[in-house]
Amino acid sequence: MLKSPPSETPAPQTLGELANLLQAELVGDAECQISGLATLTDAKPGQLSFLSNKHYRKYLVSTQASGVILHPDFANDYTGNKLLVANPYLAYAKLSAIFSHAPRVASGIHPDASVAEDAKVHLSASIAANAVIDSGAEIAAGAQIGAGCFVGQNTIVGADTVLHANVSLYHGVVVGSACLFHSQVVVGSDGFGFAPDGKKWVKIHQLGGVVIGDHVELGACTTIDRGALADTLIGDGVIIDNQVQIAHNVQIGANTAIAAGACIAGSARIGENCTLSGMVGVVGHISLVDNVHVTALSLVTKSITTPGSYSSGTPIDETALWRKNAVRYGQLNSLAQRLKVLEKLQAPSE
Amino acid sequence: MLKSPPSETPAPQTLGELANLLQAELVGDAECQISGLATLTDAKPGQLSFLSNKHYRKYLVSTQASGVILHPDFANDYTGNKLLVANPYLAYAKLSAIFSHAPRVASGIHPDASVAEDAKVHLSASIAANAVIDSGAEIAAGAQIGAGCFVGQNTIVGADTVLHANVSLYHGVVVGSACLFHSQVVVGSDGFGFAPDGKKWVKIHQLGGVVIGDHVELGACTTIDRGALADTLIGDGVIIDNQVQIAHNVQIGANTAIAAGACIAGSARIGENCTLSGMVGVVGHISLVDNVHVTALSLVTKSITTPGSYSSGTPIDETALWRKNAVRYGQLNSLAQRLKVLEKLQAPSE
Amino acid sequence: MLKSPPSETPAPQTLGELANLLQAELVGDAECQISGLATLTDAKPGQLSFLSNKHYRKYLVSTQASGVILHPDFANDYTGNKLLVANPYLAYAKLSAIFSHAPRVASGIHPDASVAEDAKVHLSASIAANAVIDSGAEIAAGAQIGAGCFVGQNTIVGADTVLHANVSLYHGVVVGSACLFHSQVVVGSDGFGFAPDGKKWVKIHQLGGVVIGDHVELGACTTIDRGALADTLIGDGVIIDNQVQIAHNVQIGANTAIAAGACIAGSARIGENCTLSGMVGVVGHISLVDNVHVTALSLVTKSITTPGSYSSGTPIDETALWRKNAVRYGQLNSLAQRLKVLEKLQAPSE
Repeated sequence: MLKSPPSETPAPQTLGELANLLQAELVGDAECQISGLATLTDAKPGQLSFLSNKHYRKYLVSTQASGVILHPDFANDYTGNKLLVANPYLAYAKLSAIFSHAPRVASGIHPDASVAEDAKVHLSASIAANAVIDSGAEIAAGAQIGAGCFVGQNTIVGADTVLHANVSLYHGVVVGSACLFHSQVVVGSDGFGFAPDGKKWVKIHQLGGVVIGDHVELGACTTIDRGALADTLIGDGVIIDNQVQIAHNVQIGANTAIAAGACIAGSARIGENCTLSGMVGVVGHISLVDNVHVTALSLVTKSITTPGSYSSGTPIDETALWRKNAVRYGQLNSLAQRLKVLEKLQAPSE
Repeated sequence: MLKSPPSETPAPQTLGELANLLQAELVGDAECQISGLATLTDAKPGQLSFLSNKHYRKYLVSTQASGVILHPDFANDYTGNKLLVANPYLAYAKLSAIFSHAPRVASGIHPDASVAEDAKVHLSASIAANAVIDSGAEIAAGAQIGAGCFVGQNTIVGADTVLHANVSLYHGVVVGSACLFHSQVVVGSDGFGFAPDGKKWVKIHQLGGVVIGDHVELGACTTIDRGALADTLIGDGVIIDNQVQIAHNVQIGANTAIAAGACIAGSARIGENCTLSGMVGVVGHISLVDNVHVTALSLVTKSITTPGSYSSGTPIDETALWRKNAVRYGQLNSLAQRLKVLEKLQAPSE
Repeated sequence: MLKSPPSETPAPQTLGELANLLQAELVGDAECQISGLATLTDAKPGQLSFLSNKHYRKYLVSTQASGVILHPDFANDYTGNKLLVANPYLAYAKLSAIFSHAPRVASGIHPDASVAEDAKVHLSASIAANAVIDSGAEIAAGAQIGAGCFVGQNTIVGADTVLHANVSLYHGVVVGSACLFHSQVVVGSDGFGFAPDGKKWVKIHQLGGVVIGDHVELGACTTIDRGALADTLIGDGVIIDNQVQIAHNVQIGANTAIAAGACIAGSARIGENCTLSGMVGVVGHISLVDNVHVTALSLVTKSITTPGSYSSGTPIDETALWRKNAVRYGQLNSLAQRLKVLEKLQAPSE
């Protein structure tokens, strides 16, 4: 029977220690013990909070937090212990790592793990119960492969990369270092390639692979297909939410963020530092330059060559009202033409 | 080798027994044996059917069913054995439980299950082959954990809750009683929290958990993220279809129903008894009151404060026609302004 | 420890052999050795490429490929070894099978597989580590069940069908021959059936199953629900991409293709040879005839009775411009009425 190591309950930190870590200016008690983080409204004594959105400023007066991370502009709005920083949200992010009690997903090689003889598993890598590491796979230093994961033939998992339970990596996938894949992620499944022969579909076997850079995070149930000939490419620092589909031969530029439910079709290229909102669709074979933002549930049907924000869709309304307007959508072209006719009647000489 | 218990083939019931169960008025043969349920058109002798939608009334005359569940208003439309009830659809639902032959997902503790020494598994709970129960997890009375599931550290699975094969529950998740999670569900993955530092994304470790009430059903491949600080909350009796994404710190009120493909962004609050149709998107940080209905593929971009039905989107049309109208969408503001100009020309004094 | 068979590295082929296979006219060196396929721009000597899209014609002059598959019309644009065929794309598809180095997902019965005593596993079928085959299931000749898969009670997996790692098939599912299911597929989960009782939802147990034909491919994280009473039906040759949801009692006709993220609601019927693009929604209880094409992110809300292409949605635009137009969508009905008023003013006698 398995005995996992205990949850890593973080030791309390003093405000002074935290101030050093953040290079923050501490105004208050450096010895005050902090055991965790919380929102301004939820915080109890012993917890540290933060203000990053001025809409929550009003909660400063009543918060029970033992300290608050603040921008200097708001220093006078709070009388308790303050950690002053230029970017409170980023400071909170940095501290979240310290107070995280997320357990390791694996420690050592579990006896119930199934590791091929010729797989190369680094001494410091860990494989959990019922994970399966196939022939020729390589698991680098510090990597953790969670329960029930599958790592296919010749696939490479980089240093310190963590796969949560039940992730499936096919053969011929390369994953960089310090990546984090959530449960049920699939990488390397066949791209959706088929040629019609007049009667049925003939499968186009996907001969490429997937190459994922460093510091990439993939959300639960996200799927990344292998390429048809060349590889599907995910750049360094890319962050992808849950239930995102990345088709074969897509290329995602470094540090791009893709929110839940988005769907990127084959051979699309997304630049660096893009942000695709939830449920965004991107059709195949188009390109988005760097620094493109797309709003939720929009469909990108043509290449975007200028940075900026892009949208499609219609506003939400009461159904009965919406229906009356929606019916008119089918008449838009006619309405436009009829308008033009009226305009000509007003100015017949034009 | 595993030998599962046999499928639970339900024993035949007599119409009299079923009438008692439903508190229905039986008009006909109480001794008639019923071995299963079927639609009016598919039913064979020995099967029981029902009429809940009057469009199917025409099938009463030709059905081969041995009996039909009916509203009294339709009693004269059918000459066979009748079970008269006020709500035939609800009666059918109740009987579906009796005629279900779905097997248990686990019986006893399978020798190939991997259970941490300090996990607490109730005597009457069952864990299937290759499921992994991590340190400190608690599996309550009557719960069934299916093949290949992962239950993370300190996670609690309530009484009689069933997890189908390959479900992944992270650490620090609380699941109530009598819940049903379908295969590939993920609960407790990290919310999509990242702070930009000017060059890259800094991960915000998600310190909250997930709390799921009683009688909650989650469909296949549905994902529920853990909260950033506070917990993500799913109320009692909530029913969620397949491939639904629930982001961190979402709160879903009791008895709300969410259909397939919907996507609820972070910190959104959905009231009680709401119904979100398929592929509905809800943006973050908004609230929907109780009894809100949203139609399919709509995007809810602002809080809804009045019960009722809400929609966005455009109607389906032949592509060639649609394209002509869609092109005009980009001219809508201009058309509206030109219309106003024409109106002014008609009534210059206004 | 597991020792998998080596990756099946395909042996080189000569152009002559490939020409025979394709029944292509070879113009060039029949003894030229080909070790793989590549795009025109990526190809290195020893690789074979193809031209199927005339936009890439310009790459013929500079390609380093050792040969190109071409339509005779383009024969004069390329001076190297040519394989002339009527349909280069189909020829490429056929050769992709030869050059595929995808390993088997299972070989033999792995000692860590968990197979019920009364399951019937053909001598030539293979079950990988930690797969679980439940009571009464049947695995036919040549089938391969990947690591961590679950095959439920009495479920039938047809000859030569391949399930990649971590697929979950519930009880009472029938899968035909030569099918390919990618990781995290779920077949046979409960359809989303619930009856309201005035206070809460009462579960409608799903008594039907799923029947999947021959030569069906299902993408990663695709989910197909079991029927309420009758079965959910997927026809022969159907190809379904990743993250597609097929609800209970849907029927998909032979050779229909469904792209990623699509969502088909309960009891919808899709004809044969249809093509549903990415993120298409189809509401319940409607029918599409054969040969219907639906464009991306469209919502089909009514039956389609004529073959052809159908669409809904609005075009992508810069957000600031889009917002001005989107606001007017809520005024469309009013605009139409105001236009009519103006028209009447112009022609008062009508």
